[in-house]
Amino acid sequence: MNSVVAKVPLKLTLFGEHAVVYKRPALAFTTSESLTVKVKESSKFLLKSDSLRFTGASVDLDSLTLESPEAGRLVEYVVATLKHFHVKRPLEVEIQSTVEPSVGMGTSAAVVVGMVAALSHYLGFNFSKDEIARTSYEIELEVQGLGSKMDTFTETIGGIIYFRRDGTYEVLPERKIPIVAGYMPRTTTTKQLLHKVKSLMEREPKLFNDLMELMGNVTERAKDLIVKEDYENLSLLAPFSHGLLSALGVTNSSIDEFVSRAKELGVGCKVSGGGAGGSLLCVTKDPYSSLQAKSLLLSFGAKIVDSNPTFTGVYTSFI
Amino acid sequence: MNSVVAKVPLKLTLFGEHAVVYKRPALAFTTSESLTVKVKESSKFLLKSDSLRFTGASVDLDSLTLESPEAGRLVEYVVATLKHFHVKRPLEVEIQSTVEPSVGMGTSAAVVVGMVAALSHYLGFNFSKDEIARTSYEIELEVQGLGSKMDTFTETIGGIIYFRRDGTYEVLPERKIPIVAGYMPRTTTTKQLLHKVKSLMEREPKLFNDLMELMGNVTERAKDLIVKEDYENLSLLAPFSHGLLSALGVTNSSIDEFVSRAKELGVGCKVSGGGAGGSLLCVTKDPYSSLQAKSLLLSFGAKIVDSNPTFTGVYTSFI
Repeated sequence: MNSVVAKVPLKLTLFGEHAVVYKRPALAFTTSESLTVKVKESSKFLLKSDSLRFTGASVDLDSLTLESPEAGRLVEYVVATLKHFHVKRPLEVEIQSTVEPSVGMGTSAAVVVGMVAALSHYLGFNFSKDEIARTSYEIELEVQGLGSKMDTFTETIGGIIYFRRDGTYEVLPERKIPIVAGYMPRTTTTKQLLHKVKSLMEREPKLFNDLMELMGNVTERAKDLIVKEDYENLSLLAPFSHGLLSALGVTNSSIDEFVSRAKELGVGCKVSGGGAGGSLLCVTKDPYSSLQAKSLLLSFGAKIVDSNPTFTGVYTSFI
Repeated sequence: MNSVVAKVPLKLTLFGEHAVVYKRPALAFTTSESLTVKVKESSKFLLKSDSLRFTGASVDLDSLTLESPEAGRLVEYVVATLKHFHVKRPLEVEIQSTVEPSVGMGTSAAVVVGMVAALSHYLGFNFSKDEIARTSYEIELEVQGLGSKMDTFTETIGGIIYFRRDGTYEVLPERKIPIVAGYMPRTTTTKQLLHKVKSLMEREPKLFNDLMELMGNVTERAKDLIVKEDYENLSLLAPFSHGLLSALGVTNSSIDEFVSRAKELGVGCKVSGGGAGGSLLCVTKDPYSSLQAKSLLLSFGAKIVDSNPTFTGVYTSFI
């Protein structure tokens, strides 16, 4: 039976979350955590997922009724991709993820990237990575209304990616940045956070712009430090950046306390991604501080993820 | 018996702490909390204080041996002021304060201001407020090695004072800014914090300068909002400013958590003064949010202070 699987590495944002929405640079990288999308012939359209919220459920793609808005979003992405490729013959789509959705690791984007990669392969198109990334970005934008290239491009291409102010990107040299990461439940949705940030921009345009500039400068500095493998100074930038995100209003008391306690242990951490919970990452200097970061994450009830940078993007194969 | 008392209002920093050391603007105001310095004729030099650390102790000013470095600093200020005025005849100096020292309310500066005001009055000099402020600033600088005009000038003049980038100041119109404040034990000394800030400046000169500029712009914006009595927007600036101070590295996990929890209740708070504990203040919108701020401060073990702005500086009288 004709069947294609796409494996998409999940990403973490190093610096520049939120600022990237306002045309400032950002840095993200892919990890060993992944999302797989399997596409195969079927007698009817079917969406299956054991890991993404609607546990163990099968959804008939012709009657889209689901309670969870997250699952709804997932279905929207799948449907939008099927439409994009004008798929008429029924297919079964199966999605599995090693991490929970909505934790700031780009699972939504990974669904689109996985769908585009798997479907294009399945349909016999020989898409380049750039085509997969661009198509995925268009579909994400269509469904979501707004967004940045960061997640779709990072997960398609793989590695440590620097997004410039002008929207172009640069793949940084392969660096084993020592990172410990985990995630916590979120207290606010990304949509609410984006709204909050926009409201600050409207009330305090000058201070907002200054803050965005400073965030952009932090990201540029971080890029240089990564290339130079200066992880000690990179580690200092993490809580610096977190303070700016806290000023922006996208943190919450648990993660503020976590980052602050880590700082008191001499470990540089920050929230990663949308904020208000979700992913947290620490740039560690040595195995001892990695252990400290891990212990502190666990003590805050966070789930540890495999956060070593990986350097391969999405890949597909017939199975 | 010839005896003079000086009552010095203690101050809170609204915005611009640390940035003021790097020639950026700052805003401070005087409260109903106060420190009094009483100077009277005596058969020998004697320093008494029931409230400033060395509880109930009397110190012979000729044999300065005290364990507490804080008390040591206090004695240094007293001695420096006595020297400044070439006092030869023995005096008894009695100091009382309504708040503990080293909580970011300017008790050190108040000792100098109180000594200068009381001594100048006692010795028959008719010092203007400006002369008291300048003399106090000089003595503080002499003892401490560094510092800003903020504490000595605010406490001498009284009211809401805006310190400009060029070192001059402006007394703002009388505004009843709705503020709730309290203080917690400090985890780091001011000296250690100043060193930490300087070290960040040396490691990340560009980002440091950007941060200082942004802090300065926050203070300028706050000044406009105070004049316009726009306390709702002023309240938003408090956690914004706190985030920047957290990026600077002068907060600790208790106060970061406090400010973050307050933000989740819709109350805008920040650390005030040197940081790492010490004073915390909240700009409240209404009596309900004042009550929330007070309750949260108490739940964090903070001691509430009387933080209504007052508009009279130091004053002296014969008793």
